[in-house]
Amino acid sequence: MTLDQGSAAGGPRTLGTATRGETVPTVPPASKAARETAVDVAALLERGRTLASPVLRAAIDRLAPPMDTVAAYHFGWIDAQGRPAAGDGGKAVRPALAVLSAEVMSAAPETGIPGAVAVELVHNFSLLHDDLMDGDEQRRHRDTVWKVHGPAQAILVGDALFALANEMLLELGTVEAGRATRRLTTATRALIDGQAQDISYEHRDRVTVEECLEMEGNKTGALLACASSIGAVLGGADDRTADTLERYGYHLGLAFQAVDDLLGIWGDPDSTGKQTWSDLRQRKKSLPVVAALAAGGSASERLGEILAADAKSSDFENFSEEEFAARAALIEEAGGREWTADEARRQHTIAIEALDAIDMPDRVREQFTALADFVVVRKR
Amino acid sequence: MTLDQGSAAGGPRTLGTATRGETVPTVPPASKAARETAVDVAALLERGRTLASPVLRAAIDRLAPPMDTVAAYHFGWIDAQGRPAAGDGGKAVRPALAVLSAEVMSAAPETGIPGAVAVELVHNFSLLHDDLMDGDEQRRHRDTVWKVHGPAQAILVGDALFALANEMLLELGTVEAGRATRRLTTATRALIDGQAQDISYEHRDRVTVEECLEMEGNKTGALLACASSIGAVLGGADDRTADTLERYGYHLGLAFQAVDDLLGIWGDPDSTGKQTWSDLRQRKKSLPVVAALAAGGSASERLGEILAADAKSSDFENFSEEEFAARAALIEEAGGREWTADEARRQHTIAIEALDAIDMPDRVREQFTALADFVVVRKR
Repeated sequence: MTLDQGSAAGGPRTLGTATRGETVPTVPPASKAARETAVDVAALLERGRTLASPVLRAAIDRLAPPMDTVAAYHFGWIDAQGRPAAGDGGKAVRPALAVLSAEVMSAAPETGIPGAVAVELVHNFSLLHDDLMDGDEQRRHRDTVWKVHGPAQAILVGDALFALANEMLLELGTVEAGRATRRLTTATRALIDGQAQDISYEHRDRVTVEECLEMEGNKTGALLACASSIGAVLGGADDRTADTLERYGYHLGLAFQAVDDLLGIWGDPDSTGKQTWSDLRQRKKSLPVVAALAAGGSASERLGEILAADAKSSDFENFSEEEFAARAALIEEAGGREWTADEARRQHTIAIEALDAIDMPDRVREQFTALADFVVVRKR
Repeated sequence: MTLDQGSAAGGPRTLGTATRGETVPTVPPASKAARETAVDVAALLERGRTLASPVLRAAIDRLAPPMDTVAAYHFGWIDAQGRPAAGDGGKAVRPALAVLSAEVMSAAPETGIPGAVAVELVHNFSLLHDDLMDGDEQRRHRDTVWKVHGPAQAILVGDALFALANEMLLELGTVEAGRATRRLTTATRALIDGQAQDISYEHRDRVTVEECLEMEGNKTGALLACASSIGAVLGGADDRTADTLERYGYHLGLAFQAVDDLLGIWGDPDSTGKQTWSDLRQRKKSLPVVAALAAGGSASERLGEILAADAKSSDFENFSEEEFAARAALIEEAGGREWTADEARRQHTIAIEALDAIDMPDRVREQFTALADFVVVRKR
């Protein structure tokens, strides 16, 4: 395929050309609304974290030993020896979205909390299982659960978190909780589909941009969609409102993942906490790579030849910084970096414009917009 | 502990003494009701299977490739090369119970089908994950999914079946479906707890009878409890009715497992399809073993010494028929076989008597009773 044949998500696109060495901005301009209202995103994220955290910890306390300990290790609350630890807890975008979405219905932010916690549980269920399936030994600068506690505990505790997510919602016993659980189940199925695609793509030489976007929509978009609507659903939102919020979250997820894919190659190790050229070292078929390979032209062709040779190389583990830098430069020269930055901006715009379809308090709309800006502007 | 200190499930018990070589009946006398009404159990099982099977297949068809193929292999519908196969499909007790339980509410049997399918999906989710965690290479005379399709697919398809179970129920969109999903979630959490216990017991020298019964209640009782009530819940049963049916199913599950544990040692390989002394070969701390070890006396003590030596033996894999037969004889001499047979009868009685607490059509009550008799009388 060529990129201007269109994409799974919408109409035709063209791939901008980037000159080698030119800086392709990964940071889209902040949206108009956020610039004018100066929403305190840090406070918004902190609110979600503060409200969800004790409920999440109480949920984990329900697990029978040793699953409670294994889960606490996964969340970074204790270290491998069981001593208290201060895990970084991530960016907490999902809990912030879930809590905010309750306010679309003018419900109290607290209405969204069981949804925020359920979404976090499903997210972490998928991390536990994906790390094992992918053989990933590190997450958030720490050994993964299967490395520390063994594969059986990674499977078992993942299962338990998934079940606990449903339990958190269904024990509310309301019609709204049933609807929220159904949407969460749909998102979970998409997560699983995305992981199945990710695994199958590993064994293929080429992946189309459409396939990559579909996989990222499943792995990242679906759960952000659920996070962005679940508080509203618990607050009594009708299907149209919930679907609109899901649309916002889905495209926000695609923007998020495009930025993640940029950071996975060109991110500053001091900010991301990952190695330089991290995704290249893992041979990840991320958007910049896939877009560069699909772009055509001499850089694209050279990149294709090099990556095909790399796939057969037994010495790949020992490649130097310069060798990875040369591959990153080729991806950029073929236009993969600029295309991905454009894609992040495009998805960011679709996300924010989706919200126009429904009424909500102005302050809530501004906060959704500010969170979207944050997701795309972040450096880690 | 000693056995006459009572058990997790009820009051004090005494352990009957069995003479070596004496035949301890594994077959409890058929209950009065079943003898008088001659319910056609085969037809009842066939009805559950016939109603649930097409819906289960349609559910599996929803899975994205290659998960649909992997699941079809697991269910025995295709072989490892993808050719159609006629899997034995198991005894189909759970679907029969789910369909029957709808009739407690005088609802059509069909009302129970989404519940029957959801329960089957959860059961098979747990088989996929447990086989991988336990390293079991065979199930129903075939290589397990992780052996054929790899560990990642076993994890992924297990996850997908779990999600699909919730989807099947929640897409009904009714209040009853929400309640059914909540009960299924509770059962699933128990399944996971039971597997956690099973794993932890493997690393211990001794397990008490109470611990063994608790584990078996979680691994077998909880899901049979759900199967026995889910059709009624979908048919609008109140909590008291659902709890009563769960009580029947839970104790039926304990009776089922006690019989399974007897068959695991003394079952006829031609009937069970397992090796002789199957559970002994796997060093399973099943009820007859645990009861024999707890009984005290010279046979019990000798058994304890032998099993402790076996645990350290590097030659265990090559033990002869006679060596396993000697262990089985010691378990029997210590009273473990008779105690387990008594336990099966006791749980069978509790299950049937539980049903007295609620009204239901006489025919439905007789069929529940006949299914309970079948579970305890079976030879495989």
